[in-house]
Amino acid sequence: MPHRDHLTPTSSGFFVSQEAPIHTDHPIPTPTAPAPDILRCAYMELVVTDLQRSRDFYVDILGLTVTEEDEQTVYLRSLEEFIHHNLVLREGPVAAVAAFSYRVRTPEDLDKAVAFYTELGCRVERRADGFTKGIGDSVRVTDPLGFPYEFFHDVEHVERLAWRYDLYTPGALVRLDHFNQVTPDVPRAVKFMQDLGFRVTEDIQDEEGTVYAAWMRRKPTVHDTAMTGGDGPRMHHVAFSTHEKHNILAICDKLGALRRSDCIERGPGRHGVSNAFYLYLRDPDGHRVEIYTQDYYTGDPDNPVVTWDVHDNQRRDFWGNPVVPSWYTDASLVLDLDGNPQPLVAREEESELEATIGADGFSYTRRGDEEHGFKLGNTL
Amino acid sequence: MPHRDHLTPTSSGFFVSQEAPIHTDHPIPTPTAPAPDILRCAYMELVVTDLQRSRDFYVDILGLTVTEEDEQTVYLRSLEEFIHHNLVLREGPVAAVAAFSYRVRTPEDLDKAVAFYTELGCRVERRADGFTKGIGDSVRVTDPLGFPYEFFHDVEHVERLAWRYDLYTPGALVRLDHFNQVTPDVPRAVKFMQDLGFRVTEDIQDEEGTVYAAWMRRKPTVHDTAMTGGDGPRMHHVAFSTHEKHNILAICDKLGALRRSDCIERGPGRHGVSNAFYLYLRDPDGHRVEIYTQDYYTGDPDNPVVTWDVHDNQRRDFWGNPVVPSWYTDASLVLDLDGNPQPLVAREEESELEATIGADGFSYTRRGDEEHGFKLGNTL
Amino acid sequence: MPHRDHLTPTSSGFFVSQEAPIHTDHPIPTPTAPAPDILRCAYMELVVTDLQRSRDFYVDILGLTVTEEDEQTVYLRSLEEFIHHNLVLREGPVAAVAAFSYRVRTPEDLDKAVAFYTELGCRVERRADGFTKGIGDSVRVTDPLGFPYEFFHDVEHVERLAWRYDLYTPGALVRLDHFNQVTPDVPRAVKFMQDLGFRVTEDIQDEEGTVYAAWMRRKPTVHDTAMTGGDGPRMHHVAFSTHEKHNILAICDKLGALRRSDCIERGPGRHGVSNAFYLYLRDPDGHRVEIYTQDYYTGDPDNPVVTWDVHDNQRRDFWGNPVVPSWYTDASLVLDLDGNPQPLVAREEESELEATIGADGFSYTRRGDEEHGFKLGNTL
Amino acid sequence: MPHRDHLTPTSSGFFVSQEAPIHTDHPIPTPTAPAPDILRCAYMELVVTDLQRSRDFYVDILGLTVTEEDEQTVYLRSLEEFIHHNLVLREGPVAAVAAFSYRVRTPEDLDKAVAFYTELGCRVERRADGFTKGIGDSVRVTDPLGFPYEFFHDVEHVERLAWRYDLYTPGALVRLDHFNQVTPDVPRAVKFMQDLGFRVTEDIQDEEGTVYAAWMRRKPTVHDTAMTGGDGPRMHHVAFSTHEKHNILAICDKLGALRRSDCIERGPGRHGVSNAFYLYLRDPDGHRVEIYTQDYYTGDPDNPVVTWDVHDNQRRDFWGNPVVPSWYTDASLVLDLDGNPQPLVAREEESELEATIGADGFSYTRRGDEEHGFKLGNTL
Repeated sequence: MPHRDHLTPTSSGFFVSQEAPIHTDHPIPTPTAPAPDILRCAYMELVVTDLQRSRDFYVDILGLTVTEEDEQTVYLRSLEEFIHHNLVLREGPVAAVAAFSYRVRTPEDLDKAVAFYTELGCRVERRADGFTKGIGDSVRVTDPLGFPYEFFHDVEHVERLAWRYDLYTPGALVRLDHFNQVTPDVPRAVKFMQDLGFRVTEDIQDEEGTVYAAWMRRKPTVHDTAMTGGDGPRMHHVAFSTHEKHNILAICDKLGALRRSDCIERGPGRHGVSNAFYLYLRDPDGHRVEIYTQDYYTGDPDNPVVTWDVHDNQRRDFWGNPVVPSWYTDASLVLDLDGNPQPLVAREEESELEATIGADGFSYTRRGDEEHGFKLGNTL
Repeated sequence: MPHRDHLTPTSSGFFVSQEAPIHTDHPIPTPTAPAPDILRCAYMELVVTDLQRSRDFYVDILGLTVTEEDEQTVYLRSLEEFIHHNLVLREGPVAAVAAFSYRVRTPEDLDKAVAFYTELGCRVERRADGFTKGIGDSVRVTDPLGFPYEFFHDVEHVERLAWRYDLYTPGALVRLDHFNQVTPDVPRAVKFMQDLGFRVTEDIQDEEGTVYAAWMRRKPTVHDTAMTGGDGPRMHHVAFSTHEKHNILAICDKLGALRRSDCIERGPGRHGVSNAFYLYLRDPDGHRVEIYTQDYYTGDPDNPVVTWDVHDNQRRDFWGNPVVPSWYTDASLVLDLDGNPQPLVAREEESELEATIGADGFSYTRRGDEEHGFKLGNTL
Repeated sequence: MPHRDHLTPTSSGFFVSQEAPIHTDHPIPTPTAPAPDILRCAYMELVVTDLQRSRDFYVDILGLTVTEEDEQTVYLRSLEEFIHHNLVLREGPVAAVAAFSYRVRTPEDLDKAVAFYTELGCRVERRADGFTKGIGDSVRVTDPLGFPYEFFHDVEHVERLAWRYDLYTPGALVRLDHFNQVTPDVPRAVKFMQDLGFRVTEDIQDEEGTVYAAWMRRKPTVHDTAMTGGDGPRMHHVAFSTHEKHNILAICDKLGALRRSDCIERGPGRHGVSNAFYLYLRDPDGHRVEIYTQDYYTGDPDNPVVTWDVHDNQRRDFWGNPVVPSWYTDASLVLDLDGNPQPLVAREEESELEATIGADGFSYTRRGDEEHGFKLGNTL
Repeated sequence: MPHRDHLTPTSSGFFVSQEAPIHTDHPIPTPTAPAPDILRCAYMELVVTDLQRSRDFYVDILGLTVTEEDEQTVYLRSLEEFIHHNLVLREGPVAAVAAFSYRVRTPEDLDKAVAFYTELGCRVERRADGFTKGIGDSVRVTDPLGFPYEFFHDVEHVERLAWRYDLYTPGALVRLDHFNQVTPDVPRAVKFMQDLGFRVTEDIQDEEGTVYAAWMRRKPTVHDTAMTGGDGPRMHHVAFSTHEKHNILAICDKLGALRRSDCIERGPGRHGVSNAFYLYLRDPDGHRVEIYTQDYYTGDPDNPVVTWDVHDNQRRDFWGNPVVPSWYTDASLVLDLDGNPQPLVAREEESELEATIGADGFSYTRRGDEEHGFKLGNTL
């Protein structure tokens, strides 16, 4: 980040800028075909190895609503959703992600999606009846980064249960908030996502300009998806929202009561990036689920882009609590359109884990202050 | 609402439909000029009669941040805002609203605003340096409904204080959420706002099709503004968001501690419409301020429109608590572009107060059930 | 309250004193026998007219835990309780209270209870096997005020479910907090309760010294029971605690979702007296249940006694919201030891409702300030 | 814990019993003189090395109220307190604890305290004017465990600010809840505290009966003080209560905003022991402060004693989050009555840190299940 001179420091310790301060020397070419108009991340299709165990986790523990189910598949939604599902659990031999699915504004945006990805030389498959129940005409692609992306507009409406407080649990999940993807070259991925119409809201860099992660949005929240640097393509997590922070604490309490606290991987805590309150869980297959609440509005075109220093100990946990190594290293496989796991490409740039943890890494609470306090980060 | 047959009943007691079930026989003509692309409600300019008393209310009690101030004017913003202000308090002889101000996507949208309102025969004024500090090129109009509307794109950026928890109070206001306007003919007003690019999210009707109020949005929340039936044009309220419900309770507690509880007009409570948690205050001039949290995402183009029956006792307070008469009858004057109060036009259709309160009105907790319980609504 | 000169005004508008400023000219004689050492209010036995409807209310809606049940009776406890029950629902012909039951420190305290009430000439009944399941040796009396009081020490222990967060609902009730009794002569009742070992924590008076209500405790909270002035003996309410305020709001939301909001009689709100957050419900028989959280520690012997002026509009609701008339007028019958309803004795002193509501009453937000604001209290 | 057979397992994974399952072979003799009747822990006197820095921490950050101050000393109280102070900060050369102070029921209890400790051969000092401002007749002793204990009854009353919500911060501290002491021989210390009138509510043991920590109460909460096994006498922490969990999160957020997050040592989290929600901070001298909310009522004489297995990973954090080593190893010195630090006696029994962390330790989420998950505990 030699260009840190061009960023504006804030009283909170991070920087802001107008343009996303991320540049790539290895861009994917920008298609001449216009990108589809994406509304929001809409659902994830997860392959799970034991459908009943996964159903127990997502329905009995997390309280997602079953819209429909059969022997192979469970279709789940959050309480404020009116489309058929936000999560599909499909039983299969290898735990993986079959689709990151986005809703587009119009049926015609599917034609645009086909043209956009076809021009990029991607494999593209379109099904008029959709790939999952409840969804109509859909396009699935393996994108240039290796991820299985889906786009759809037509969808079955179901009742929005927002007012059905008799169905709420103490940890009620009300919305799908975002995806998070692992990819080796973050700037290259960001540039591609910008071509797809996404806007950067926050990122993590070091002073040399290495980008460790970036957050991007279509709907006016901090993100619909994020790119996290690491061996990829992999899925880092899928995130659901609660209304309040105590709802997230209630999920922890319930896991403790059920003697399932070992599926709490990290948190709860306050993010620096996004300013949201968070918790990371691991489902029975190890798929990571974030529970998330209270980020901020980002819908203005000149919304300030926030850049965090990778050595700022409050960037990922605003209270300075340590990130467990598994959070950096583990992620889920993603599938190609034939259902085979995508091979991984190693990240060549420095890893955030190595840059920030252990004897060689260093991080600060106050810039220029070498005190470390009681934090575990530097002793892991 | 003879067309109630075309609405879909829900398990929560209201109806949903795809198209806003609101039709007018007295439409304002739709301009051929395209509407400006409005991002969101951005700020309100309030004329107050005693600047210091109003500053005490909005700064010392409600905790809004002073961006800038002079002897005549205080510019205030909420904690998550990055534009110069969300509220302008300007001292003047008559308490009133000088502007409902919206941010538009591009500078060019101001040209569109000029053309749109000019074609409608409205008075239009444009100032390259803006009408208030911190705002650049702006267009103000007296719209066909008599309201002073402003549009701008250029604005001074200030620091978003979202991460500055050292500045938060227990009742911290984080965003401007919406305006609410009083107008005699709601369907006519809705049709005009739809021409301006707004979408209806919810409304209140009776079985005969009389529309008592409607909520409309640009950003994907339940509203940027609402139209409430009554003598108008007047301003019903301006609303700020908190993160959680306890923040709203904390404002009540603080008002009690300061022996200012008499400025609590209604609530706190849960709205039926919007599903948000709410509180209504009256400022020293009687301007009504709502504190609001936790409505739902409405950004999909086929977001279900919610229609409430005017006799459903849970429509305005989901717990069935009564609406005080002043909430229906009182509202603030609005100014023309010369600063003179607009004359009022009387509502000709039935008033919601009369339809629902007192011996002639009736309302129900359960449709078809005539029990009234302890509620005050029918005894006021 | 001519002795108001002897009270110390506070910055919050009420007064404090060391001795409860309540005196009676018609005392019940103080027994020479020592009072039993009461630990706390422990359970109420309620007679309900439709056991299934009441079970639905207390179990399915409020989430109390069934310890045991049979065709006539349901035994319920709160989540943090380790004794057999906090509430007994027993089906009977007339809705009423069969017992206000207190736990005493030792088995020998039952002997003291027998001697204490026998000396007072009360009817006393002792059963070695208890009057309800799960409770051992017990003494029931009709006390000098006409109330059916019970004392016990031996009790069956059951699992304290405090850590069983998998069983919590959003509105989880964790403790029985207090009873509230209606009696015509509050000072006489207070004096008797002081003889029984209770200490006054707060009261409501007017300037002439009329006492409208008083709160008294054994455990170090604001009360185990309160005496409310009115025709009596009757039971005003029984109160359960939640952990946080949002739990109380969740109960309102659930009642709205179930279209049972008409059982919300008053609140939610912040009490002046006790400083607790509250909600009043009415069960299917009209028995009043309070949901309550966050009063303060009162266990020091010199805990300041708080006296509120009856005309202080923030005494019963710190936010100045009105008390509905039914809250003053309605209460449950209580039974004698044969199960017959006790006849009522009319209150002779002024009623709080008449003193504070309507054209003749007056109340203030700020002492000496005659403004009334939007409050409904003076218009009911 | 060979006697674990005599304990009753619960569905939450811990055991309950009627008598505290703690026995010592090295008891301090029980005095024949009766113990004073202790009401509650009342205040701690802390020696700090930089009064201004400490004042910044406790007043500006944590929001305690200054009752009185001079150049050497600051007297602080929580919002619901009516006695002069709950914390005294006194500047001195060595950071340490000068007194753990308890309030007793009557002035005569001071005579009992003198007799009780004199019989034990302890140094006892009594001052009619007290050792700190605002406190009258007081007794200070060096107790048989080496701790500086104080007892008083007479105290200056100050205004209870519970209703002064205008003074509340988002992280408002409302009560002093408890102390926590480090002592080498926990069973010996427990036996002594039982002689002083304390009752055990919870403890941590292993299967061999080694006791690692025990919690004891006078007021009916989980504790007024606890004994933690380690080199002692030292002070482990002093704890203040908030009303709700979000208040504790707000303190973390504020520390992040102030770039002081490195004073967060552990948490926030849910305790297994006590079931309370917690956070541990370190003040500028390293004195540990706990912020605590929502334990349970323990006032019945047969309140079930809870015993946790030291290898139960949810005993100290119900969510299984790791305890940082410093939390086990660090504690504050305590002073003798001349103001000199007490020498430490090493703990001879196994340490909880060694028993539970690292390759030799082991802990479980589910008894009999060897999976470790992502927790850091076994990798530290």
